[in-house]
Amino acid sequence: MINTAKRLEGIGEYYFSTKLREIDTLNKQGKNIISLGIGSPDLPPHDDVIKVLQEESAKPNVHAYQSYKGSPVLRNAFAAWYKKWYGVELNADTEILPLIGSKEGIMHICMTYFEKNLAVLVPNPGYPTYASAVKLSGATPLYYDLKEENNYEPDFDQLENLIQQGSQSPLQVVRGLWVNYPQMPTGKKASNKIFKQIVDFGKKHNILICHDNPYSFILNNEPQSILQIEGALDVAIELNSLSKSHSMAGWRVGVLCANEQRINEVMRFKSNMDSGMFLPVQLAAAKALSLDENWYKHINEIYKQRRNDVYTLLDKLNCDYSPEQNGLFVWAKIPSTYKNAYDFSDEILYNSNVFITPGGIFGSNGDKYIRVSLCATSEKIKEAVSRITNHLNKADN
Amino acid sequence: MINTAKRLEGIGEYYFSTKLREIDTLNKQGKNIISLGIGSPDLPPHDDVIKVLQEESAKPNVHAYQSYKGSPVLRNAFAAWYKKWYGVELNADTEILPLIGSKEGIMHICMTYFEKNLAVLVPNPGYPTYASAVKLSGATPLYYDLKEENNYEPDFDQLENLIQQGSQSPLQVVRGLWVNYPQMPTGKKASNKIFKQIVDFGKKHNILICHDNPYSFILNNEPQSILQIEGALDVAIELNSLSKSHSMAGWRVGVLCANEQRINEVMRFKSNMDSGMFLPVQLAAAKALSLDENWYKHINEIYKQRRNDVYTLLDKLNCDYSPEQNGLFVWAKIPSTYKNAYDFSDEILYNSNVFITPGGIFGSNGDKYIRVSLCATSEKIKEAVSRITNHLNKADN
Repeated sequence: MINTAKRLEGIGEYYFSTKLREIDTLNKQGKNIISLGIGSPDLPPHDDVIKVLQEESAKPNVHAYQSYKGSPVLRNAFAAWYKKWYGVELNADTEILPLIGSKEGIMHICMTYFEKNLAVLVPNPGYPTYASAVKLSGATPLYYDLKEENNYEPDFDQLENLIQQGSQSPLQVVRGLWVNYPQMPTGKKASNKIFKQIVDFGKKHNILICHDNPYSFILNNEPQSILQIEGALDVAIELNSLSKSHSMAGWRVGVLCANEQRINEVMRFKSNMDSGMFLPVQLAAAKALSLDENWYKHINEIYKQRRNDVYTLLDKLNCDYSPEQNGLFVWAKIPSTYKNAYDFSDEILYNSNVFITPGGIFGSNGDKYIRVSLCATSEKIKEAVSRITNHLNKADN
Repeated sequence: MINTAKRLEGIGEYYFSTKLREIDTLNKQGKNIISLGIGSPDLPPHDDVIKVLQEESAKPNVHAYQSYKGSPVLRNAFAAWYKKWYGVELNADTEILPLIGSKEGIMHICMTYFEKNLAVLVPNPGYPTYASAVKLSGATPLYYDLKEENNYEPDFDQLENLIQQGSQSPLQVVRGLWVNYPQMPTGKKASNKIFKQIVDFGKKHNILICHDNPYSFILNNEPQSILQIEGALDVAIELNSLSKSHSMAGWRVGVLCANEQRINEVMRFKSNMDSGMFLPVQLAAAKALSLDENWYKHINEIYKQRRNDVYTLLDKLNCDYSPEQNGLFVWAKIPSTYKNAYDFSDEILYNSNVFITPGGIFGSNGDKYIRVSLCATSEKIKEAVSRITNHLNKADN
């Protein structure tokens, strides 16, 4: 009997992993479930991106190990992309670290800066991996609320209280804050003011601000970065990704932006864990980053149509939603007659063969909400609407 | 000032990272250094592998997130490969976990099983990442000797002593053993007897045996796996890789083989860290694994020629070496007139513009050795011989 390390206590199988297995079983029974669950872009990348991958991989000298810091071509492409779209100047040699997907960046940051006897603020609701990675580092996640009545912005009085509460015990010095706008799952975009307040809060308390920014190009005409705030690099790290912005989720290409010292610190962990990405993938990613506004227009037209279809679906389900949301999902409040969204989601799954994510998996503040993915074709979403309508009509009779 | 976590203490920049920067500087000064340092295959993969990548990446539906467990196509290909070449039966659904390179597997294993108050046995000399990953997990590496006079096999009396020594303190229960045959850097192949002794040792002391097996197809007609030992899966995990065997180092494709319970345990860490690999890369890797013996013959003919050229180089340098070595390097003893191989390596670098790795970076038992990589063309190795000969002739006059 060989025990696992204590850091794995309380780290279970991801909700989606269990649920997808259930859906798989239902499908094997012939149910043909329509999943509006996961935010995995179904659209392909731009043709030119694939062409670069194909051409570069045919060359004989591109198959060796790559540098831990990534190809200069990709780092320069990220720098140009940040400059063009966010208006943020980053040094391609020292402030940009390409990643095998931004998800690994969450773990690299946690392992580099967090450990036992420290606490880290994480959003409720938020992406579950923030809390899991904090726990795996040995630190304690302290949840801060994002509520509809506060426009899904942090309540800085509560953050101050959590810092005080954390500090009361020598076991819980608060060392970090995970934050993410456009926010997943609530679809809320940050104001410049909120980013400024977060950076100030980090400076005041000597807390590392970890901003995760994968959604800023989806259904959003003004991509924002926390690094737009003057002096943000003193205290903030930003993760970004090509998964959503360039429909390259499976390719695993992300980036970590931070000041030089921090990049070097993260590299001390990362260089013991992996190597640089496959060069043809890096060069294809650089091509993707150089695409002009037509690319973003193209994917957003599709997502906009799908969002309209999802609104129809939510209207059928008597759910409330804000029409001002960004990102790859629509966040909606369930009818007050339901105790929680787990029941609501299961009812839709079993009655109509449509899967929608219950908001509770993102934290207790999501208990009365559902999250509908835009990563299904309009045709499929319309079919989901029709299945749900049919069931409701039957139930009415 | 935001501090890094304690786990990074003593984790410095990798030797190669510093040295490669120095070589880069020398090259900028016009020195045109020939590097026989790193084991990064310069040969391309088989044409069919690249073709699969090209064809699959052109499909519209291959760009989404992939399952954490990897494509069944790749898992089945690994199972068939293990069966065909090692004679080992593995269940493709439950005992095989594809990795983004086997290097990440070293960290996943350490983070899943090791932590503070535990010790882990690591080889001296050996791949430095074993000890770094153990340290990053919070556990303590305890070095065991691999010496030429013992045929680079573990001394089980010493291992027993290290276990006793570890056990004397409640802080150091020995929980794991890292081992690797064909061994890097010594090029030593394991006997079946040694693998059996290692598995028995693991069972006796309830120690996880972590076998890293990336070199078994290079200059070796009988690939071995520790899993060939009956009952090995009870106590052993094996990492394997396509980096060397299929000239795909940059692609980042590896595998972790273990029993079902262990795969599930490692997945609890890994699924919080990354996602599945790019599907076209997985399918191309499956193609690589299905290649017949002509592939291995093809690359080994090239490596054999290079090894002969390296022997000539080592003869010029008055180094002693065993002609029975496996893997991507030749390990050789430096002339007794030199204090250590760092001086010897630097002398060759500065006098002849040829870089050869000093053995000391793999542990103190490597201090009197150098490791010469076969990842340079015969032409380059011959040019290195000629530069060294020229310098020696000049020095003689």
